[in-house]
Amino acid sequence: MESLERLKRRLQELPGIGARSAERLAFHILREPREFAAALAQAVLDVKDKVVHCRVCFNLTESDPCPLCVDPRRDAGEIWVVEQPKDVIALEATGLIRGAYHVLMGHIAPLEGIDPSHLTIDALVARVRKGGIREVVLATNPTLEGDGTALYVQSLLTELGVKVTRPARGLAVGSQIEYATTGMLESAIRGRGPI
Amino acid sequence: MESLERLKRRLQELPGIGARSAERLAFHILREPREFAAALAQAVLDVKDKVVHCRVCFNLTESDPCPLCVDPRRDAGEIWVVEQPKDVIALEATGLIRGAYHVLMGHIAPLEGIDPSHLTIDALVARVRKGGIREVVLATNPTLEGDGTALYVQSLLTELGVKVTRPARGLAVGSQIEYATTGMLESAIRGRGPI
Repeated sequence: MESLERLKRRLQELPGIGARSAERLAFHILREPREFAAALAQAVLDVKDKVVHCRVCFNLTESDPCPLCVDPRRDAGEIWVVEQPKDVIALEATGLIRGAYHVLMGHIAPLEGIDPSHLTIDALVARVRKGGIREVVLATNPTLEGDGTALYVQSLLTELGVKVTRPARGLAVGSQIEYATTGMLESAIRGRGPI
Repeated sequence: MESLERLKRRLQELPGIGARSAERLAFHILREPREFAAALAQAVLDVKDKVVHCRVCFNLTESDPCPLCVDPRRDAGEIWVVEQPKDVIALEATGLIRGAYHVLMGHIAPLEGIDPSHLTIDALVARVRKGGIREVVLATNPTLEGDGTALYVQSLLTELGVKVTRPARGLAVGSQIEYATTGMLESAIRGRGPI
C-alpha cells in the first residue's frame, strides 16, 4: 500500500521516530476516524502558516510583534538573551521573568560554520543602542558554545555601557536549558550576577 | 502560540508520544520548509482516504480486492488466518507464504466485549464453504486470546472438512507476531502442524 508506506516514510523523517514507531503511528492514524487525521494534518500546516518570528525579539509568535514584546506589564528595560524559542518557554514557565527576551536563533559554532552573522546579534545590539535598556541577561546554554556566544555578545554590549549579567551557575554545566527542571532554573534566575 | 500548542496536543494523541516528544516534533516541523509539513499532512490524509479493507481477506489495501487476493501466482487454496493487518506484513516479510490471507480484525475477548460477531469469522467460514480451500492455517497470536480465537475458528472449520493447522510454537508464548523476528517466524511457518 503506497499511501501507508509514504506516511511511514514521512513519519520517519521526524526526530526520534524509527521504523517501528512510524509503523505504529501510521496504523494508529489509520484506525482513528478521518476527523482525527484531518485535525492532525491541519495542525501540521497551521504551525507553518501561522507562526512567524517576532520582528523585535525573534521569538516564535502568531502576532508580530509578539505578545511578550507588546505586554505593557513587562519590563522592557531588561532583556533576557536566549539561544532558541524553546528556552523562552522554559524560562516563562518559572513565572520569575518580568523582562523582555531576545532569541539569538542558535549559538556561535565556527566548526559548524555558524558565525555571529548567522545569529540575531546585530539586532540585539541595535535594540540596546536605541536606549532604555538597563540590563541584558545572557541566558545562553551553559555549554562551550553557549558560553562562547555570551562572551562575544558581552564584548559588544559593554562598549555601550549597559549592565550585562548571566544566570547563576545553578544550571548543570553541559546540560540544555530546554530540559532543566523549574527548580534548577529558579536558582539560576535568582542567583544571576556579573559575567 | 495557539497553533503550536494545538499541534503539540494533536501529536500527544498519538501512541507513545508524550509532552516532551510532542514539543520536539512540533519544533522540528516548524523549522523545516513548508513543503515538509505539506507532505506530512498530505500523507496523513491519504492514508485515511485511500486505504480500505479488502472485501475478500479484510487486509488493508488501496485496491479492492487487494493485490494479494488477485495475484494468480498465489495459492488461493491455502488461507493464513491472522488477527490484524500488521501480522500480514510480518508474515509476508519472510517470503515463505504462497497462500492467501484472512484478517480477523482482532481476537475474541469476552471481557472486552469482543465476541465472534465483531470479527470476520463469518466471512472466513463463507470463503471455505464456497470450496477450493485445502488448508486453513490459524496464525493468530500465541496468547490466551489468540489461542481461544483459533480454537473457536477451528471448531467451525473442521465441520466443513477442511484441513486446519497452526504455525509451530517457534513463537515465544505471550509475544506478539508483529514484533517477532524473521527467524522466529520462519521456524514457526516451516514447523506448522495440526491444531
